[in-house]
Amino acid sequence: YIPLPTSLHRRWVTAAAEKGKHVLLEKPVALSAAELEEIVAACEANGVQFMDATMWMHHPRTTGMRAFLSDGERFGQLKVIHSTFTFAGGPDFLTNNIRVKADLDSLGALGDVGWYCIRAILWATDYELPKTVLASREPVINESGVILSCGSTLYWQDGKVATFHCSFLTSVVQDLTALGTKASLRLHDFAVPFQENSASFHVTSQFSSPLVSEHNVINDLPQEALMVKEFACLVASIKGNGSKPDKKWPTLSMKTQVVLDAVKASIDSGFEPVEVVSPLFCTT
Amino acid sequence: YIPLPTSLHRRWVTAAAEKGKHVLLEKPVALSAAELEEIVAACEANGVQFMDATMWMHHPRTTGMRAFLSDGERFGQLKVIHSTFTFAGGPDFLTNNIRVKADLDSLGALGDVGWYCIRAILWATDYELPKTVLASREPVINESGVILSCGSTLYWQDGKVATFHCSFLTSVVQDLTALGTKASLRLHDFAVPFQENSASFHVTSQFSSPLVSEHNVINDLPQEALMVKEFACLVASIKGNGSKPDKKWPTLSMKTQVVLDAVKASIDSGFEPVEVVSPLFCTT
Repeated sequence: YIPLPTSLHRRWVTAAAEKGKHVLLEKPVALSAAELEEIVAACEANGVQFMDATMWMHHPRTTGMRAFLSDGERFGQLKVIHSTFTFAGGPDFLTNNIRVKADLDSLGALGDVGWYCIRAILWATDYELPKTVLASREPVINESGVILSCGSTLYWQDGKVATFHCSFLTSVVQDLTALGTKASLRLHDFAVPFQENSASFHVTSQFSSPLVSEHNVINDLPQEALMVKEFACLVASIKGNGSKPDKKWPTLSMKTQVVLDAVKASIDSGFEPVEVVSPLFCTT
Repeated sequence: YIPLPTSLHRRWVTAAAEKGKHVLLEKPVALSAAELEEIVAACEANGVQFMDATMWMHHPRTTGMRAFLSDGERFGQLKVIHSTFTFAGGPDFLTNNIRVKADLDSLGALGDVGWYCIRAILWATDYELPKTVLASREPVINESGVILSCGSTLYWQDGKVATFHCSFLTSVVQDLTALGTKASLRLHDFAVPFQENSASFHVTSQFSSPLVSEHNVINDLPQEALMVKEFACLVASIKGNGSKPDKKWPTLSMKTQVVLDAVKASIDSGFEPVEVVSPLFCTT
């Protein structure tokens, strides 16, 4: 498990992989998709498993929500997604934390909490990449160029639209809403559930009664433990059965990173639309 | 009370005002700010009260939320607002309803449900107009040019940002979220409360325990009755005491309309940013 600041990931993942160590990597996994390609290539070359530490992916609630979104009868067709992840960093955080330092985590809030928003949006679309990304025009950037707050709109070929906002500047919010033609799904603790042993999501539908229903999912282990368990299973399978490392996890990291890169590129271009280029990596 | 399609408002409000009738007008109040100026001028010239039928403004919950947003100690400074109002119109609605007919309500979803989103956003900022509006790039527009679904980002001089999405194409959602530096406010039934006799809003703050708290407000009358009551009070005051018509209500309508016009202009310009021009009306 590598929890180091993002700027150190390439060096230390490469070193770990070369020693035959499997890698569970803190997010954001890299400063760019190009860097992530090197990281993943090092893992592949050494036959070690790569997984990013996006813990909520391993919560059974996530599986339950996936089943609901995939149910055309109940949810209909996905049209709009909105996600917000913010917390108020406070003066000490905004001065001293590694996540506001250009040489450590230059992606700032976009890399830290925006990563979760982007992953959640991609998760909702079953990992279909948007065709275009347009950053919101008012990011807050500190004097060393680190993003403290930003937002973006994502556009898909079929007309789906997503928006997200991520920030270190407002009190904690971690919302995800997915609007379908027949119902919508909503939760306010998508990344870190309010409770450790159970979590819920809400469904709203004008076609059913009650209008709003709560769906609760019990978890016997915290999502972080479930993540480690899944990682350990993959590693055991490689060690015991000679399996190949699972490609799903590096692919999800790469898709998240290319969208994140596109948001950054849109900010850097003065808020022009940026096309999302599907990474070569994901098509092999 | 005039519930007619928007394209008939100017003609019938003018006729009513000339007969000395006070006007409670269904939203969207007009097809453009220019048209609304004529409507309000007709009311002023005849000394009659004008009020738009934005019913949730009269719910006591709205007063409670206003007090919370204005409380710097608890809420901090407002930074981000997000609002969504959608419902699934269904095939019959999308073919035959007045709100999808170019000659009746050409603003479509923007005028119908977008009106509420824009008003809610302005309400949250205490009616400070944004400086710029940028429409989202993927509106859905029917063959006669009526908006069925659209979104927008609004920018204020001081860095506040708001986004909204309105549509006839996804199942019912009516969300409002306001993010402050110290807490956030959230509700899922801002325009039409889930229950008739009480309504709640949620506050989330990383600086208090519990993280999320629910604030419930009882109303003895439905919000529609409270609206009519307030309108009747203003009219009684004009008739009984010779008061002048209250300027607050036409001003709020006009501010909502100029933002709505800017969103429409941004869509029509191919998604360019549009400056919001403060209406002359509001400065007199």
